[in-house]
Amino acid sequence: MNVQIRERPDAASSTGIKTAIADCDIHPARATKDELFPYLEKRWHAHLETFGIQAYQGMMEGRPYPKAQPNASRRDAYPPEGGPQGSSLSFMQKQHLDPNNVALGVLNPLATGQGLRNQDLAGAVCSAINDWQIEKWTSKDSRLKGSVVVANEDGVSAAAEIRKRAGDTNFVQVLLLSRNVEPLGQRRYWPIYEAAQEVGLPIGVHAFGFGGNPITASGWPSHYIEEMVGHSQCQQTALASLVLEGVFERFPKLKMVMVEAGFGWAPSLAWRLDKVFARLHSEVPHLKRKPSEYIRDHIWWTTQPMEDPESRDHLFQTIEWIGWDKLLFATDYPHWDYDEPSRVLPAGVSDANRQAFYLDNAKQLYGIA
Amino acid sequence: MNVQIRERPDAASSTGIKTAIADCDIHPARATKDELFPYLEKRWHAHLETFGIQAYQGMMEGRPYPKAQPNASRRDAYPPEGGPQGSSLSFMQKQHLDPNNVALGVLNPLATGQGLRNQDLAGAVCSAINDWQIEKWTSKDSRLKGSVVVANEDGVSAAAEIRKRAGDTNFVQVLLLSRNVEPLGQRRYWPIYEAAQEVGLPIGVHAFGFGGNPITASGWPSHYIEEMVGHSQCQQTALASLVLEGVFERFPKLKMVMVEAGFGWAPSLAWRLDKVFARLHSEVPHLKRKPSEYIRDHIWWTTQPMEDPESRDHLFQTIEWIGWDKLLFATDYPHWDYDEPSRVLPAGVSDANRQAFYLDNAKQLYGIA
Repeated sequence: MNVQIRERPDAASSTGIKTAIADCDIHPARATKDELFPYLEKRWHAHLETFGIQAYQGMMEGRPYPKAQPNASRRDAYPPEGGPQGSSLSFMQKQHLDPNNVALGVLNPLATGQGLRNQDLAGAVCSAINDWQIEKWTSKDSRLKGSVVVANEDGVSAAAEIRKRAGDTNFVQVLLLSRNVEPLGQRRYWPIYEAAQEVGLPIGVHAFGFGGNPITASGWPSHYIEEMVGHSQCQQTALASLVLEGVFERFPKLKMVMVEAGFGWAPSLAWRLDKVFARLHSEVPHLKRKPSEYIRDHIWWTTQPMEDPESRDHLFQTIEWIGWDKLLFATDYPHWDYDEPSRVLPAGVSDANRQAFYLDNAKQLYGIA
Repeated sequence: MNVQIRERPDAASSTGIKTAIADCDIHPARATKDELFPYLEKRWHAHLETFGIQAYQGMMEGRPYPKAQPNASRRDAYPPEGGPQGSSLSFMQKQHLDPNNVALGVLNPLATGQGLRNQDLAGAVCSAINDWQIEKWTSKDSRLKGSVVVANEDGVSAAAEIRKRAGDTNFVQVLLLSRNVEPLGQRRYWPIYEAAQEVGLPIGVHAFGFGGNPITASGWPSHYIEEMVGHSQCQQTALASLVLEGVFERFPKLKMVMVEAGFGWAPSLAWRLDKVFARLHSEVPHLKRKPSEYIRDHIWWTTQPMEDPESRDHLFQTIEWIGWDKLLFATDYPHWDYDEPSRVLPAGVSDANRQAFYLDNAKQLYGIA
């Protein structure tokens, strides 16, 4: 056995899918380094020229993705006009949105101000990214909707950015990453949750990010695979923190989407939390319900990655636990681990559940008519 | 709802269990601070008097367990002659071994040299703990078997300690913790695996430990519950590291037991690893089989904690995935989260599986006639 990174079908060979779908994880990129500059105050042009950026640094650098997949993306996804994968709307339309019948595509920009240590710069870059999403993407293709990116370590400025976008139908969610300076339930992040609830936007929590700590409690692993699968453990701790700090008790209308970290771990995490909670409720008296109840009511989950058990029944049992109404289809386009829409669900799913999974859950969550 | 820490039944009200059982996680304690001194060279008496100990330090200190459960243990487990819970053989016999019909009790000493930064001291303390296990426990009650504790950060000295105990039937396994200076698959720990395979002892990997890093990739959580449930995430990263570094390829006869971190997360971790491995095998070409195959063949799992799903079927499906022949019963006596033997398995388990779970799997794994 000597499996290599699989080649991806090129645009021409895409099989397509007949029913309209929502793709809840699309990553748009800048075509050039300077593409963001028109959206940034002049002050920051000079600052970036003089100081560059200071990010939370660590051994992550240089190895977030296999090198053989440049820009973490499909090698067939380079736009013909140049620029990195995901940087051309017309090529995204031709390669992905049109052939795959994407009726709703949620943009999750990743290289934003999140993770920058200068919080004023972080906020300026995030705000610029939000303007850029409108001008380059959502105003040009009504199928695409943006995510409000925020300087997440500065809850107050992040909340201001969210309120600035209130009522703007170019955006359907706020975007956070799961690996931060502190676990996501901590109070420094509460202004974000307060603002998101107030303006009625769900919060997507996408895997990745970096806050200075290694991805394991025992330091640095050796392999990309460990880093990648480790993001599921990050997401587990983030979700436990959100539940146990009482975020969903404090913000009862908040909806969150766990993006790109799998969901097979959700039931066992909830079972364990419930069992411990039954005996240690007095440590978290602000919780009025069992941890599993907050998880079931407040959390949505995207596929890509979707766990792939040997037994189809195991997959269905897992989905039944989280709820067919809580699962959202996502491709992760143009990243290398993209899921082909027509191949992601095994046989044996009812038409109603397929329809909910591929489109209706997302339309309902994101308020798309 | 205002659940407090539940009181435990006292010795007199223990329900007992009719069939003989193996308890694969019993924690013996020292009755006094000085109890270990007879097993330590004089050199270390003076050293401890002058320098004390230097452990990997962090915010763990002072909060590994709820304070209301002193010594992390049942309040009804104090021996009548004084000393902390778990420090009296006669009281352990009276309260636990006799009424619960324990035919095999595996001792897992926790406050050992593991985690001390002076590796010579760590090795001396571990060796003393091993001598103490024989003299105080296993030579006095043939139902009890010890675990060889080792200075795990110094693989070479740890391997020497394991070889020193080769063939000594007082011991049935080597004991490691899951949270260390590096992930457990790293080569610094390989001499331990080599020696354990050579002398034919399985390795128990018990939750807890500390190597300087916070328990989440986003720093320190607020609650004991997060710390406790977080150990399952530590165990997941440790297991991924063991598999991906090729430990089971290099040491094909090695058997490992995951102790006190649950097992509900095992299938979804294996599914995810298999899926990523299928595409990124070239990063870990030393692996000849799918990650799930190493996990199924090389890993045993103890209960306490056993996840407690709402649906009994979900529990059974999880156990079927890991294998009824791989599950070992454990109480965690005398710790506060002790599981009462007669109550741990739900109805609906076949007699053969009950027998395997309560006794036969452990006897076979640990080589007890």
